[in-house]
Amino acid sequence: MSKKYNTSRRNFLISSLTTGGAIVASDVARATQNDDPAITQLQPWASELGDGVDASPYGRPSNFEDHVIRRNVPWLTADPTSSVNFTPLHALDGTITPNGLCFERHHGGVAIVNPKKYRLMINGLVNQNTVFNLEDLMRFPRTNRLYFLECAANSGMEWRGAQLNGCQFTHGMIHNVLYTGIKLKDILTEVGVKSSAKWILAEGADSSAMTRSIPIEKALNDCLIAFKMNGESLRPEQGYPVRLVVPGWEGNMWIKWIRRIEVGDKPWHHREETSKYTDLFKDGNARRFTWEMDAKSVITNPSPQSPVLHGPGPMVLTGVAWSGRGKISRVDISIDGGINWKEARISGPAGSKSMHRFYYEFDWDGKQLLLQSRAQDDTGYVQPTKDQLRSIRGENSIYHNNGIQTWAIDRNGTTENVEVS
Amino acid sequence: MSKKYNTSRRNFLISSLTTGGAIVASDVARATQNDDPAITQLQPWASELGDGVDASPYGRPSNFEDHVIRRNVPWLTADPTSSVNFTPLHALDGTITPNGLCFERHHGGVAIVNPKKYRLMINGLVNQNTVFNLEDLMRFPRTNRLYFLECAANSGMEWRGAQLNGCQFTHGMIHNVLYTGIKLKDILTEVGVKSSAKWILAEGADSSAMTRSIPIEKALNDCLIAFKMNGESLRPEQGYPVRLVVPGWEGNMWIKWIRRIEVGDKPWHHREETSKYTDLFKDGNARRFTWEMDAKSVITNPSPQSPVLHGPGPMVLTGVAWSGRGKISRVDISIDGGINWKEARISGPAGSKSMHRFYYEFDWDGKQLLLQSRAQDDTGYVQPTKDQLRSIRGENSIYHNNGIQTWAIDRNGTTENVEVS
Repeated sequence: MSKKYNTSRRNFLISSLTTGGAIVASDVARATQNDDPAITQLQPWASELGDGVDASPYGRPSNFEDHVIRRNVPWLTADPTSSVNFTPLHALDGTITPNGLCFERHHGGVAIVNPKKYRLMINGLVNQNTVFNLEDLMRFPRTNRLYFLECAANSGMEWRGAQLNGCQFTHGMIHNVLYTGIKLKDILTEVGVKSSAKWILAEGADSSAMTRSIPIEKALNDCLIAFKMNGESLRPEQGYPVRLVVPGWEGNMWIKWIRRIEVGDKPWHHREETSKYTDLFKDGNARRFTWEMDAKSVITNPSPQSPVLHGPGPMVLTGVAWSGRGKISRVDISIDGGINWKEARISGPAGSKSMHRFYYEFDWDGKQLLLQSRAQDDTGYVQPTKDQLRSIRGENSIYHNNGIQTWAIDRNGTTENVEVS
Repeated sequence: MSKKYNTSRRNFLISSLTTGGAIVASDVARATQNDDPAITQLQPWASELGDGVDASPYGRPSNFEDHVIRRNVPWLTADPTSSVNFTPLHALDGTITPNGLCFERHHGGVAIVNPKKYRLMINGLVNQNTVFNLEDLMRFPRTNRLYFLECAANSGMEWRGAQLNGCQFTHGMIHNVLYTGIKLKDILTEVGVKSSAKWILAEGADSSAMTRSIPIEKALNDCLIAFKMNGESLRPEQGYPVRLVVPGWEGNMWIKWIRRIEVGDKPWHHREETSKYTDLFKDGNARRFTWEMDAKSVITNPSPQSPVLHGPGPMVLTGVAWSGRGKISRVDISIDGGINWKEARISGPAGSKSMHRFYYEFDWDGKQLLLQSRAQDDTGYVQPTKDQLRSIRGENSIYHNNGIQTWAIDRNGTTENVEVS
């Protein structure tokens, strides 16, 4: 399913690209035939009354889109209750991930929490141990923020080479959602945080009791207690009725079904921040507390699940980019495996720590392509190559792989996951 | 279900508000009991593995949210194929309307268009009559824009007084969506528009062949040919696979399932821009071509479907505001039926011709309230009262009612649709 290009193979491809004929805009390629029966003949949907007399209290996608679904990789998680599936990035556009397609990752299944029984407890180094119910939380001032959530293990299978043939699988443990919630700072202020406080512990109400330590500075800076996503209540698999939002930091810390926040003076070193979610180096040491998600990008179209169906001529290349440290300041595109770069166009609503959408339009001469995208954030950080990452971190970890992805497109439009090195 | 307050009744209410005791922040009212069994005892969702082993390829809302649905008003449309339902604004927050909850209005049912048979024809005063299929359209540069779509008849039942007890019914023929599409200008440029062109005709592929005339300046300015909403393909009831986006203008012009654009030199005066979608005045004359949606707002919480469940103390008031002429520059709130006004806080992603979310937090003294919101856009236009509208337009039309809405809240939190005059 995948292959690793060596240098000679790469040079062959590049050579065929750069010595090609002049690139010509091909307008004719963008229009179909005027005598096409699909336009000259009356279609069934125009001659009969349509479906639906207020038929759908809650709407569904078209049946023609039934391939646009979250998918799993059966061999990836042995334990059936430790489930993961992936956002179909190749079938989406814009900067919002629809709620029904936001990837799932849970460690004890989806907790079905009765909102009337929902409680959030704050304890530890606070002036007043306090328990809030949902109605209580609704009486705090609300805010609305667009943020990406990326699993630390996103692209984790790619550390040792090109493995999974589709951006849904290589990069699909991410979504980008508009959250409505209240500032964690406001809740902590309400209960009164003692001056000795240095950390918080966030704990989920699910059967895995997912638990993570977070520095108090982050908690007071931009964390949210969120109850809506993209306008409606959180979905069950995203923590209904309430989740923690930890902007820019690894998804595992965004505790779902959050039931308790303890304020303390040191980290707790729970399982999910020691044996898991730490990065194992070549020498056997692990780096811990690698919270921030570094700048990253991927081309979503074309990609292996979305090959080029048209011939040469105008081609629209699109993808997504994000950084846990701020805004994406630019995205560059290479069609020759990283030798030449051109700046892409960023479009649509986006902000700090949110997904950005980019486009790059060019005329395809019909020859083989090696497509790459490279993101840069407003701290000046530039997305590295996979080889640059490996030279520092080795190949032992599955976490925090933000290396540049390459798709090879052959003359018939087929697209594959490859590496150039 | 509803009533019209006269002046004396209003004065009674106002008097009881303004002579009330001092307003006190009541923190205690925001926390539940610490010995509540819901927090002290282990809950079932924490003691058993949860649902779902990658169980939902396409996710659904929580069953606890099954009241959050589009609803119709049975007596509103006699013809069962001329359907309409309403967005549950009272159950939403933020600035995005989820796709499953965007109101529906169709004139021949939902056309189920096979995307492989989809065609868009451009003819008339163009250099080259042209037919595009979906793949052709995907080869034009794309853009992403957040826009509200409001039916011209939204709030139409309220011209003659307070009728419908819930903002879902009074204001729910609106949604706010992030569209991905191509500029109509780019398509018209591709086929070449003749210098005599002054108008376009947009025609739908459904059985009603919905057809509207649009000035060429608007078509070339900001109209889109859209194929994605909030990241995924358009929903069937919103025009799958392709609809026209006419930012800021009445929803009926946003032709769904668009199959043809004719370029001409005068308007066509089709049914939906003569006998319908024109505003009948007192003297029997109708004004036509009232395309732009004027600035408008509504408080969504509290509202009749979302009464105040807590007692006195901190209350969060929220709602939405929009203008077809630009951005919302401010929203003011009155809790005394329009005598005193305070500026609300606007939050979340919003732009020109998109919905804005506002909040107003205050301490409720537990006395009766008459809540109003008043939007102002960046042209300086201020949302009028219903009486101001009636003094100019009479009560014959159902279209373009952007008057200020009043909700009366009594001491036990019950909320009703009323008018003050």
